Amino acid sequence: MRHTKVKDLLNSTTTLEEVNAKGWVRTFRNNQFIALNDGSTINNIQCVVDFENTADETLKRITTGAAISVTGSLVESKGAGQKYEIKVSELEILGDSDAEKFPMQPKKHSLEFLRENAHLRVRTNAFGAIMRVRSVLSFAVHSYFQQKGFVYVNTPIITGADAEGAGEMFQVTSLPLDNLPKNEEENIDYKKDFFGKHTNLTVSGQLEGETFAMALGQIYTFGPTFRAENSNTSRHLAEFWMIEPEVAFNDLNANMDLAEDFIRYVIKYALDHCGDDLKFLEGRLLEEEKSKPQTERSEMTLLEKLNFVLENNFKRVSYTEAIDILRDSTTNKKKKFQYSIDEWGADLQSEHERYLVEKHFKCPVILFDYPAKIKAFYMRLNEDGKTVRAMDILFPGIGEIVGGSQREERFDVLVEKMKALGINEEELWWYLDTRRFGSAVHSGFGLGFERLVLFVTGMTNIRDVIPFPRTPMNAEF
Amino acid sequence: MRHTKVKDLLNSTTTLEEVNAKGWVRTFRNNQFIALNDGSTINNIQCVVDFENTADETLKRITTGAAISVTGSLVESKGAGQKYEIKVSELEILGDSDAEKFPMQPKKHSLEFLRENAHLRVRTNAFGAIMRVRSVLSFAVHSYFQQKGFVYVNTPIITGADAEGAGEMFQVTSLPLDNLPKNEEENIDYKKDFFGKHTNLTVSGQLEGETFAMALGQIYTFGPTFRAENSNTSRHLAEFWMIEPEVAFNDLNANMDLAEDFIRYVIKYALDHCGDDLKFLEGRLLEEEKSKPQTERSEMTLLEKLNFVLENNFKRVSYTEAIDILRDSTTNKKKKFQYSIDEWGADLQSEHERYLVEKHFKCPVILFDYPAKIKAFYMRLNEDGKTVRAMDILFPGIGEIVGGSQREERFDVLVEKMKALGINEEELWWYLDTRRFGSAVHSGFGLGFERLVLFVTGMTNIRDVIPFPRTPMNAEF
Repeated sequence: MRHTKVKDLLNSTTTLEEVNAKGWVRTFRNNQFIALNDGSTINNIQCVVDFENTADETLKRITTGAAISVTGSLVESKGAGQKYEIKVSELEILGDSDAEKFPMQPKKHSLEFLRENAHLRVRTNAFGAIMRVRSVLSFAVHSYFQQKGFVYVNTPIITGADAEGAGEMFQVTSLPLDNLPKNEEENIDYKKDFFGKHTNLTVSGQLEGETFAMALGQIYTFGPTFRAENSNTSRHLAEFWMIEPEVAFNDLNANMDLAEDFIRYVIKYALDHCGDDLKFLEGRLLEEEKSKPQTERSEMTLLEKLNFVLENNFKRVSYTEAIDILRDSTTNKKKKFQYSIDEWGADLQSEHERYLVEKHFKCPVILFDYPAKIKAFYMRLNEDGKTVRAMDILFPGIGEIVGGSQREERFDVLVEKMKALGINEEELWWYLDTRRFGSAVHSGFGLGFERLVLFVTGMTNIRDVIPFPRTPMNAEF
Repeated sequence: MRHTKVKDLLNSTTTLEEVNAKGWVRTFRNNQFIALNDGSTINNIQCVVDFENTADETLKRITTGAAISVTGSLVESKGAGQKYEIKVSELEILGDSDAEKFPMQPKKHSLEFLRENAHLRVRTNAFGAIMRVRSVLSFAVHSYFQQKGFVYVNTPIITGADAEGAGEMFQVTSLPLDNLPKNEEENIDYKKDFFGKHTNLTVSGQLEGETFAMALGQIYTFGPTFRAENSNTSRHLAEFWMIEPEVAFNDLNANMDLAEDFIRYVIKYALDHCGDDLKFLEGRLLEEEKSKPQTERSEMTLLEKLNFVLENNFKRVSYTEAIDILRDSTTNKKKKFQYSIDEWGADLQSEHERYLVEKHFKCPVILFDYPAKIKAFYMRLNEDGKTVRAMDILFPGIGEIVGGSQREERFDVLVEKMKALGINEEELWWYLDTRRFGSAVHSGFGLGFERLVLFVTGMTNIRDVIPFPRTPMNAEF
């Protein structure tokens, strides 16, 4: 008979005469009670084995991690915590798991140990929950944009453009590194490379996305992006997934409205669809924080924090106002910032963003109208000639989760900016075409998907919210 | 006032006193009728300009490709082909488009020319339609799996594993190619590379996906994959998007059922949600085929072909049966195959697949139980010891659209196979762990997303169904 998912068995509205379940043993106690999980839900189904009529040989093989198939009746459970359990009439060991060797023992493992076993950590409650939440969040992203008529665009991963300007790039090549072809000038002959030129992994799909927005109106990307930066922090990955909507005829205000509405939608979607998993993760976080001093613990539980975002508007603050707040803060005056804020024009560091969000406003903050000098070339210059229509959304505990802007739609202004920054116009001929032919006001933003997953799951290290993290010196699996 | 999408204006159920629309001019005729498109639909809205009361200077700037904003009333159209049109009271040129220079003239362009202008081709009817259909199909993929409780998994793009075995790989590095660090043996010192080892772009997420399926039960990937193969054909890309579901406890039959149900679902979804675009593409295909000799034209129109797939089961044929059919075919006997089929064990070429699908069965075909020798190491060996539980789905006009298998779940058999093929066991320690701990029957497949888009849109070159194609010698944009 076809097996039924544990989730469906637990949600059954009636007892059932014969069912089959397949999954992995989480625990086996008293030679009688199997906690069986198949990944469909964080909850296990209890399977009660008739140990007196089961061969000892079989009982011994019911170990943590073993794959089994159980057939029996779905009956009301006498135990606490579950409505139904399976009274097992037939049990088959599908795949053994040597209790001595299986790394995922039913005890607490360090997150570091679990990262080293990223192929198995998803068999734990926490990582099963995280990965289900991640999946549901990604579907929420698509649902939001598709409902609103956005077109999903797969911008290229391998790019010939060096000028995206968002960070250090990885090179992609099919040349043999131990026998590189040289041209007449004794330089590497990239004409012999696969694409006939030097190519990199993309750091952003924005520029290509803009060309599509200027035809389809509203588009979004959702794909992997890369940074070859030696940032060994809990907030950075070398490979991460980014969401980049781009909308023709949107100005910066409409862009902020979109970002805020979008974030609220996906968080609500997770709350509506991942109740069990989020409840578990809330408990995990409370447990984790017990070991911290009181002052470092969250003021809100995970679910409270998520609901807070749903119920409160993000605070919109100009860069100039933010600088005033920071400069006048006691922290700054007491020289407690590592980088003290003295004057307008300073780039904000993570410590400043956290101060604004966590100490001053105590809610998500949108900073806008940044100095042109500290932002990218494609951002719309304001009439003041010194600020650009940029915005960053800052989240408590996460820092920057969104970076966006209204784009410079004026051909002449854009070219001048590129020249000043030494960006090759010829290389970006196609990008400039969007301003040559039928240009218009347009805006977009990028949201780092893993930072969103961090926020929603309450995890604190970005390596724990992506299946197989890529970081400096680490590309295992 | 906020502008309304063209799609919503065309779908209006009533006339409206004042509306604003923004978009790009497709054509402007008789100094009076603008066909305006904003990408929300393939259909343009007609905007009627009161040319007698509009400055000549403005009228001259209403050129193909120009971005404009029109305000006016939505009135019933007297012209044929549309229910409503906008009677313009106010017109603003947002961005000019020099009619002499704009490459996307309102005439027929060659597909090759359009590829060279991939950043602008999406402003044509055909490519707007293709990209909307692609987007809707991608959402159909997610919808199908999420509804069934599959977990979306982002397997890594940069991989340290060389052994995925699906094809030639691109290397990813942050080392300076003109100054490569060497170790004591004078070899390239990959310990100094970003990840401390030699890394590539993934050719498949399957192996990592399996580790997640053995914890979460049902998973799928949908992400970019890469082949550094010099295949300059209309069916190959160096960078393409692949969908790879993997299901614990599914055998090959269940795997075939899943693939068939999935394909039917996404095609039906496109038919239900992209009616206008598909109708346009059907007309485009008919037009294109007029230039072909009668014998090369499709027997069915695009929509007939899509409905045919919905209404007919895929024909399931074993490799052995297929070889018999091919060997005994007149084509083979007359030596009309480039590679003639003489004996069991031969790898099937594209010409053979097309014969089976297009000449013999005239419907989608699932071939299964291939010789072990011509298939990958991880496929489940049959009891006959010489075939594996592999399956390929072949589509008319496309060839292979799906490749899948039941996976070898037996540790010993898998290791033996790897040894015989010289695959490094140590490198795949984590993959083998799935067979060490709680192994079970499981199956999955890979579907090349662009081939699906090809089939659904009726296009014939894969470079025309992805925004910015990556092929040998081409990584423009």
